[in-house]
Amino acid sequence: MAAPPRNVDARTAALQRPASEVILKTHTEPSYDLAMERRKATFNVEELSYVLNGGKEQLEKKMRFAEMLSKTSWGDKSRRYFLNREEEYVGALKAALGIWEKMKSERLSLSDGALMRTLVDFPGGLELHIGMFIPSILSQGSAEQQAKWMPLCMGLKIIGTYAQTELGHGTFVRGLETTATYDKQTQEFVVHSPTLTATKWWPGGLGKTSTHAIVMARLMLPDGAGGVRDHGPHGFVVQIRDMDTHLPLPGVSIGDIGPKFGFGGVDNGFMSFDHLRIPRDAMLMRFSKVTPEGVYVPPPPSNSKASYATMVFVRADIVKNSGSVLARAVTIATRYAAVRRQTAPGPGQRELQVLDYQNCAATLLPLLAAAYALTFMGEDMMGMYRKFEADRDAGRFEGLPELHALSSGLKALCTWIAADGIEECRRTCGGHGYSRLSGLPTLFASYVQNVTWEGDNNVLCLQTARFLIKALAGVKAGRRVEGSAAYLNDAATELAPGRRCAAAGEACWLRPEVAAAALRHAAARSCATAAETLAAASGGRLVFEGAPWNSNTVDSIRAAKAHCALVLHGTFLASVARLEAGAGAININTSTAAAVPSDDADAGAAGAGAGGSLRLGGAAAGVLRQLAALFALEVLERGGGLAVLLEDGYMSAAQAGALRRAHRGLLAALRPNAVALVDAFAFPDYLLHSALGRQDGDVYRGLLDMARGSPLNDTEEGPAWLEVLRPVLAARSRM
Amino acid sequence: MAAPPRNVDARTAALQRPASEVILKTHTEPSYDLAMERRKATFNVEELSYVLNGGKEQLEKKMRFAEMLSKTSWGDKSRRYFLNREEEYVGALKAALGIWEKMKSERLSLSDGALMRTLVDFPGGLELHIGMFIPSILSQGSAEQQAKWMPLCMGLKIIGTYAQTELGHGTFVRGLETTATYDKQTQEFVVHSPTLTATKWWPGGLGKTSTHAIVMARLMLPDGAGGVRDHGPHGFVVQIRDMDTHLPLPGVSIGDIGPKFGFGGVDNGFMSFDHLRIPRDAMLMRFSKVTPEGVYVPPPPSNSKASYATMVFVRADIVKNSGSVLARAVTIATRYAAVRRQTAPGPGQRELQVLDYQNCAATLLPLLAAAYALTFMGEDMMGMYRKFEADRDAGRFEGLPELHALSSGLKALCTWIAADGIEECRRTCGGHGYSRLSGLPTLFASYVQNVTWEGDNNVLCLQTARFLIKALAGVKAGRRVEGSAAYLNDAATELAPGRRCAAAGEACWLRPEVAAAALRHAAARSCATAAETLAAASGGRLVFEGAPWNSNTVDSIRAAKAHCALVLHGTFLASVARLEAGAGAININTSTAAAVPSDDADAGAAGAGAGGSLRLGGAAAGVLRQLAALFALEVLERGGGLAVLLEDGYMSAAQAGALRRAHRGLLAALRPNAVALVDAFAFPDYLLHSALGRQDGDVYRGLLDMARGSPLNDTEEGPAWLEVLRPVLAARSRM
Repeated sequence: MAAPPRNVDARTAALQRPASEVILKTHTEPSYDLAMERRKATFNVEELSYVLNGGKEQLEKKMRFAEMLSKTSWGDKSRRYFLNREEEYVGALKAALGIWEKMKSERLSLSDGALMRTLVDFPGGLELHIGMFIPSILSQGSAEQQAKWMPLCMGLKIIGTYAQTELGHGTFVRGLETTATYDKQTQEFVVHSPTLTATKWWPGGLGKTSTHAIVMARLMLPDGAGGVRDHGPHGFVVQIRDMDTHLPLPGVSIGDIGPKFGFGGVDNGFMSFDHLRIPRDAMLMRFSKVTPEGVYVPPPPSNSKASYATMVFVRADIVKNSGSVLARAVTIATRYAAVRRQTAPGPGQRELQVLDYQNCAATLLPLLAAAYALTFMGEDMMGMYRKFEADRDAGRFEGLPELHALSSGLKALCTWIAADGIEECRRTCGGHGYSRLSGLPTLFASYVQNVTWEGDNNVLCLQTARFLIKALAGVKAGRRVEGSAAYLNDAATELAPGRRCAAAGEACWLRPEVAAAALRHAAARSCATAAETLAAASGGRLVFEGAPWNSNTVDSIRAAKAHCALVLHGTFLASVARLEAGAGAININTSTAAAVPSDDADAGAAGAGAGGSLRLGGAAAGVLRQLAALFALEVLERGGGLAVLLEDGYMSAAQAGALRRAHRGLLAALRPNAVALVDAFAFPDYLLHSALGRQDGDVYRGLLDMARGSPLNDTEEGPAWLEVLRPVLAARSRM
Repeated sequence: MAAPPRNVDARTAALQRPASEVILKTHTEPSYDLAMERRKATFNVEELSYVLNGGKEQLEKKMRFAEMLSKTSWGDKSRRYFLNREEEYVGALKAALGIWEKMKSERLSLSDGALMRTLVDFPGGLELHIGMFIPSILSQGSAEQQAKWMPLCMGLKIIGTYAQTELGHGTFVRGLETTATYDKQTQEFVVHSPTLTATKWWPGGLGKTSTHAIVMARLMLPDGAGGVRDHGPHGFVVQIRDMDTHLPLPGVSIGDIGPKFGFGGVDNGFMSFDHLRIPRDAMLMRFSKVTPEGVYVPPPPSNSKASYATMVFVRADIVKNSGSVLARAVTIATRYAAVRRQTAPGPGQRELQVLDYQNCAATLLPLLAAAYALTFMGEDMMGMYRKFEADRDAGRFEGLPELHALSSGLKALCTWIAADGIEECRRTCGGHGYSRLSGLPTLFASYVQNVTWEGDNNVLCLQTARFLIKALAGVKAGRRVEGSAAYLNDAATELAPGRRCAAAGEACWLRPEVAAAALRHAAARSCATAAETLAAASGGRLVFEGAPWNSNTVDSIRAAKAHCALVLHGTFLASVARLEAGAGAININTSTAAAVPSDDADAGAAGAGAGGSLRLGGAAAGVLRQLAALFALEVLERGGGLAVLLEDGYMSAAQAGALRRAHRGLLAALRPNAVALVDAFAFPDYLLHSALGRQDGDVYRGLLDMARGSPLNDTEEGPAWLEVLRPVLAARSRM
């Protein structure tokens, strides 16, 4: 197969020639376009890179790791998009074990390990061992249980998973059907799946990898009257496979649940039990206990509240990750939109950069703004988590309801924005975005499950809405609300007839306080509307369950979103101010979920620790404030806020028109910095693994080079020739 | 692996017991829920099925074909979700050849073949042979060329594809770089790829299957002054592979472009030419010609207009297909939402059907309405195509600009609705929707390219907007506009200050003319806004190109969408009226694109022909009108229409509130008919191939049965045990 000819202009030559000369040519290297884009930046990109990556040292480490990983057999990505499912499964395991080995041999920290996992980007059978099995033993196991299991876990003498979800039961944990019935005679639990729908379904690594699992099962104890009493779901450490043969133990049926949208490397599994006996001490007994006699010792009262720590941590990590993942997609799409050219304005003229079409900019720039917003939000939520830990240790739990509501809604809104945003980015890449070589199909298909797991987004929004509606009712009854919903204290004033938006003209909409006031009004009105429709359905009262609640979930979900959008905007601005003051830093890279929260001094501190010497410059801060403004106007203009504000009489038609013009103006104002703003994330090519997102802009050569590796190209005539095509076409001479 | 226990209730037993008794049980068969749903229908489902499927006979044929296909080796789908890319490629070819053989042996019509392809649902290397190569020879080849090539095509002695798109050039055809330079000495064309970006990229079947291709290349002819003149892109039939060895011919480099989001069975390919010589008569010469002396004979003037026929046909087919594909996704998600249960209202109570949560109904029912809307629109566009053919034959082309604008915008809006709708359906299925066994990931990943191919949706919307803005300017200048945009004739009245919506109260919004008037006003206002922003950017005039046009595409695209939404609603209502009058029928099944339009008497006529005896009953028509109303209110309430109407002063806050209540009321009113309305599409389980969309509702057993076939389950210990896991876990005794 001869190589197609190279484009006429060599990149270096193009860069040396004056721009005017090059632009007159019909075909130039895309790399040249990207280089020209970088010259347009109005701020210091390197400086912003450091701030976003926890400092120069951390950034250099990321690049060094990427280089190192790309040279390992298990970290090499050249065949990543060509693997079949079985190869993905084996490859992902090898990568996880490779990282594990590297951490041990080079005595790296847990956050270094997490950084490597982020870079290798190959989820596999060990995810839940690291992310759920070990943390659960640490947080819910007794001291003896930790002493028994942790060395086995850390030495990879066993591999565990976390088996909660069942075929018929997901988000509603109280619906689980698997039982663990205590047999006082033998001092054992009998683990059993009483129905088909009780089959455990989805646990990562369960299908073919794990030897052990924490099984969530209903604890059934003697009720003292000859029957049993159901104490609800509890966790049990259960060995599920023979350590010598890896076969499922008698009484356990296990398998892989088949292919998914993405996540091909993970062997999500199913499992059912036929009266499997496990010892009494298999139950995780740090809090609840069962005595040898089968007597239930309930957890201390504060425990249920304290256990929120893990949940807050997980959600904070999901939000942090949402920013990072969206930033990757925006990086790919923005770089490509800067080099892709489409439609010449006239004969002999060069086709235009796709990014110069307003609709393309109107897709990508708000997503770029969102990527920053989500990243700042994730960092902020990590702060909330640390504050919760401190409060918990001081026995203070007043902030818990609001923290629960806020973290629920933010998990939902941020994962929606990221998932939908990746797909939007993919579509702006046109036909080439449909190729897996762009990196975007895989990113979307693997990421989009985030809107479902750790609580379905709609269900989570309803929890947020419940809090907001209750808070609003409380305010009416004279109670104050603290925290992110404090604006509801002023709801009566805010929503009084005659309340008007203060914006006068287009420029006003660029002022943070004007946009924030509009978002606040929209949130307050949305909460009030949700409360009103609920009251109407409840016959005047507020009934938070059953038919009244379920028949008004559309307005409730809207209220939750409006509230969280307000929080995102506020956090964006506060973060920029803090970074400008040199009082903090960000690390967009590390997904800390995989680390063990409390035991890893390194995690979360990477940014903060290196932050002392970091300071966001004024030019960059100004551009980030433009992004924050765009984020707000996008929520108002395209996220449905405008209709709320117009309907409410808060905003006039003239103000709406000015808002629209301000939105379009921001697109034009930010356009020159688009590539610089994605460059600042500083994702190495190794991480993006995208023909379109390459840092050098050499997208077409990238596509061709990657395509050559397609297994269908192993032979010139292809795998169907001999058996399928030749018999049909046979015996024909050349025409 | 022992089978997990079956659920306690057997379906038949459940159906015989009184409902009250069953509902009190905690666990019942999901099949029972679906059976109960079917009892709620307020109309005759079978009757609607016939109307939607072109009559009883056609429906029975579909079911018979499905049964037959499922029993062939090449039509069997049991391993479909488990194939690797190479297996998909070979399997899809076998399926296409199997259908081809079956058509020949049973002397079936082209539309029967298309129906089989729809049912087998396995696009492969033959798609473009059937869908583009043959039609192009028929429509653009001279009589001699047809006589030469058609027997080879129909006898599968050659396999062709259509090579237009290049690595650097997609929607903008005039940007193509491949050249075909005439050599008068040898009377040959020299086909050449002058740059890397000229590499042909994307043609289906090019990678490993096709022996021939229609190559679009710039025709370069002697200019009479010793140089060459560029006559722009023309089509050439080029042999690309050796017929005996299947190897690329010298001067041709070919390969597969690698994996895509979906469409794994298709070997989309790349190809570049190094001065390949082809005879003069390889150029398709029905219209343009080149004499042996190298003189260009341009096509007759009416040809460029006449050639729109194919484009209109293809777009009509895409729209028809959008309805059918969305209907499949809605069928799967609605059946599953009716059997999936989530969260018990209280202890001991049964969890609720997911479809009973308002937000779930608010997702699925508008998509159900859209599926009907798109289906009716596709049928209507086929009518437009036939009318265009008749007009063309009579030399009338006045309707062409409007037809072009309308078909562009509808292709865009309908594929957006369908693509986004499939993904929404997938998400309402929660975790199980993420499994490929649900059928939805594959459906989405394969379908979503429709927003990009045959003209990127945004680019197409801009063509529609250009027409609308020009039409509005024409009206102001005293010219009338006909067809779908005729409402712009009254724009001055419609948009005059003081024009008010007539709705008084919630019930008003259920009246078709009220909703239609609101959609019309929103469309007119959106067109006017787009015209105004363009005028502002053009310095008062209307400049439809360059910076002014490109910097205002957001409002233009909105105008196109608003216009097309109005058309969809109008077509919905008109179609119901026509079906109720017994004057027409629909066939949701056949994708006719694969057929040769003009030569297939059967295509498109299936519905119309059988329609005489079909009549939509009043009950079903009433329900369809509710769906049409929901479609309209959804566009207004969630599609952005409300903000336009409020900003314009057309609608008051009270009216907006009433509209919202009417929207929610329709959700509740349609809820009992949800399952019946998807049943009416009558998609056989074979087509859906979905564990969640099964007609019998036995979703959990379906998931487990399908999952057992996962290749990872070929062994109990999995493919990583011996080489990867055992060395790590080794030498540990059972714990």
